[in-house]
Amino acid sequence: MSSTLQSDYRAPVRELLSGHNISTSNWHVSAVKETRYDAVVSKGLLDPANPTLAAGMEIESGGSARRLFVVDETVHGLYGNALRAYCTAWDIEAVFITIHGDEGHKSLENAVAVTKAMSEAGLNRRSQAVVGVGGGVVLDVVGLAASLYRRGIPYIRVPTTLMGIVDAGIGIKTGVNLDLHKNRIGSYYAPKATYLDPTFCRSLSQRHIANGVAEIVKMALVKDRRLFEILCDEVDRLTPEYVADANEGMSEILNRAIGGMLDELEPNLWEAELERCVDYGHTFSPALELVADPALLHGEAVAIDMAFSLGLALARNLITTGEAARALDVIKSAGLPIHHPMLDIKLAEKALADTILHRDGLQRVPLTNQIGDCVFVNDLNREDLTDALDWLRSRASEPRRMEA
Amino acid sequence: MSSTLQSDYRAPVRELLSGHNISTSNWHVSAVKETRYDAVVSKGLLDPANPTLAAGMEIESGGSARRLFVVDETVHGLYGNALRAYCTAWDIEAVFITIHGDEGHKSLENAVAVTKAMSEAGLNRRSQAVVGVGGGVVLDVVGLAASLYRRGIPYIRVPTTLMGIVDAGIGIKTGVNLDLHKNRIGSYYAPKATYLDPTFCRSLSQRHIANGVAEIVKMALVKDRRLFEILCDEVDRLTPEYVADANEGMSEILNRAIGGMLDELEPNLWEAELERCVDYGHTFSPALELVADPALLHGEAVAIDMAFSLGLALARNLITTGEAARALDVIKSAGLPIHHPMLDIKLAEKALADTILHRDGLQRVPLTNQIGDCVFVNDLNREDLTDALDWLRSRASEPRRMEA
Repeated sequence: MSSTLQSDYRAPVRELLSGHNISTSNWHVSAVKETRYDAVVSKGLLDPANPTLAAGMEIESGGSARRLFVVDETVHGLYGNALRAYCTAWDIEAVFITIHGDEGHKSLENAVAVTKAMSEAGLNRRSQAVVGVGGGVVLDVVGLAASLYRRGIPYIRVPTTLMGIVDAGIGIKTGVNLDLHKNRIGSYYAPKATYLDPTFCRSLSQRHIANGVAEIVKMALVKDRRLFEILCDEVDRLTPEYVADANEGMSEILNRAIGGMLDELEPNLWEAELERCVDYGHTFSPALELVADPALLHGEAVAIDMAFSLGLALARNLITTGEAARALDVIKSAGLPIHHPMLDIKLAEKALADTILHRDGLQRVPLTNQIGDCVFVNDLNREDLTDALDWLRSRASEPRRMEA
Repeated sequence: MSSTLQSDYRAPVRELLSGHNISTSNWHVSAVKETRYDAVVSKGLLDPANPTLAAGMEIESGGSARRLFVVDETVHGLYGNALRAYCTAWDIEAVFITIHGDEGHKSLENAVAVTKAMSEAGLNRRSQAVVGVGGGVVLDVVGLAASLYRRGIPYIRVPTTLMGIVDAGIGIKTGVNLDLHKNRIGSYYAPKATYLDPTFCRSLSQRHIANGVAEIVKMALVKDRRLFEILCDEVDRLTPEYVADANEGMSEILNRAIGGMLDELEPNLWEAELERCVDYGHTFSPALELVADPALLHGEAVAIDMAFSLGLALARNLITTGEAARALDVIKSAGLPIHHPMLDIKLAEKALADTILHRDGLQRVPLTNQIGDCVFVNDLNREDLTDALDWLRSRASEPRRMEA
């Protein structure tokens, strides 16, 4: 992120409030800030021959090259040596700390622990970017810490999961959970850059591949029919190796998912507009995700919400049964769940009530109009929710169908 | 604060890193955000006949008028009834919580407690501003909570101390202390508006009046010689009653201090420029303030830093002894300390080292060139610090002189 700003106007004026004998002085303060960051796909980011990461960290020979890396514990186990070798090759005086990457550690306590590491590392305020390496949880926690430490220090995101590469790692949102509320505490804080390396996906489990695919399916359903068609063709091939190689079909999937997401984020970075198609699958999932037992990954909760939303679209006659069945098949074929025993009418109504507060008084629920397009509804009622739940239960017990 | 934003450009490009056979996809994300807020002086803010606060809270007859007030505990004891009567008069469904306003409670734990109250109050995300009422600590804590809760909800500042009115309440910085580091955790987050009512000062102690005067003296020394001359005339009259009445001389003092501060803040709201004349008195004071025993108020620590900085300006031949003596006399006449037994060479060097990190690798210490003007120095050495400390000790034991 780099920032430029300019003074717009400031006019001190004196007013006399009419009908009220109180003199006042008013100042109007106005200023503009520009936010910029790069999202860069680069295979083999930790290959010492690859200059991308070092260049992004502004490593120059002879300069002060101390940098703090905050790394997911599991990722550190897998890639710690490669990361150290990379730093050695580029003369980076690296300080490493590791944090847990599971949802239960997405807490303010963990973010504070990261700020203490920033303090101990003795970094300059503006010129020594902190690098977060890990999945969505780690990037959200490090991003929050970076936004709060000295009111903001530069940071760089290196997502290591498919979820991070296509979703959590490319926007400017940071966040931690508070009590049973997901991302209730957070900030909008752009990274300096985010470096997206699909080869990290080689070490993911199939379940974590599916977790990321959920957000790709989301982009397909709400705005990219071509991506949906590609997914129909490719969904059975999406193994860790196939994603990591990122050749032809996979490369197009990644570019469409990332580019489509950034198309939606860029004109609405601070969510001035609360009708966001990328909130598809994120209306009911936050409540479900935090109470689900057995636990769900974020993408799994999103998948269930998307499936439920297909039921809502059907209940509202927004989509044909054929299109809904095709969409549901892709979700199932990706190895994602479409139902959870704890998603009942009570949870759905509670989730919707909280969503209304979060979307400033209106439901603003995105539903698929047809595959690749969405509309927003504000008048979902109990009957709609019940109909959708019934449809979902009937589909959950059905064997998978494959249509073209 | 209101925000508008516009998409600037986003160009997906494909590049081949030269000499490195790795294909990459780059996206450049860029967006602009405007920040606007009002600073309004209004005497008698809690007078039910005064519409200023209700208008700022966007209270309309018939609308949802639930609002959360976070109030300094002491202020609540003094003005709680008046605040409730005001809310009754304007049909505001007020929820009140109180927090402690002393420096020891300027903690992340307290900010989290405020976010929990926000959660319990069930406020809409964008349309029900939280109102912070209190001194600098309360406003900093509530501001941080408002910036973090749901990644930012609107808030309104009502400073009740002179320090809050001329300094802590009119910028966009929020913050809490971390371990022994002042404001180490915080955010830049503009209020929707700040309402400045000097009549609150009637209930302040003389010590807390002096606390606020310190920041006014700062503005005079670094950029407003006319304000300095007014202060020379008025400093002996600055009782709580005189400040609260805010007639003639006091009104001009307030307007020059507030207006001068906003002149400095507006073109540099996010501190892109780290050479800030308003950092005068804030180089050595953060370290002193957090260890001082007996404890110092913020303005008292700033006063000691300003006095020390006069010594530094003398050591560097930036100011005449006459001007330094006049400046020191105003500080002393305001009832402010100019020395503390714990300010020694060790603390001064430690404070300067931390300041260098905070100012991204350079000292950038503002010193008075002549009264009403300042310069920045980057090469203070141990001898300068020792000379200034010696001068300060000699002056601290001297009786007060009054010159014109």
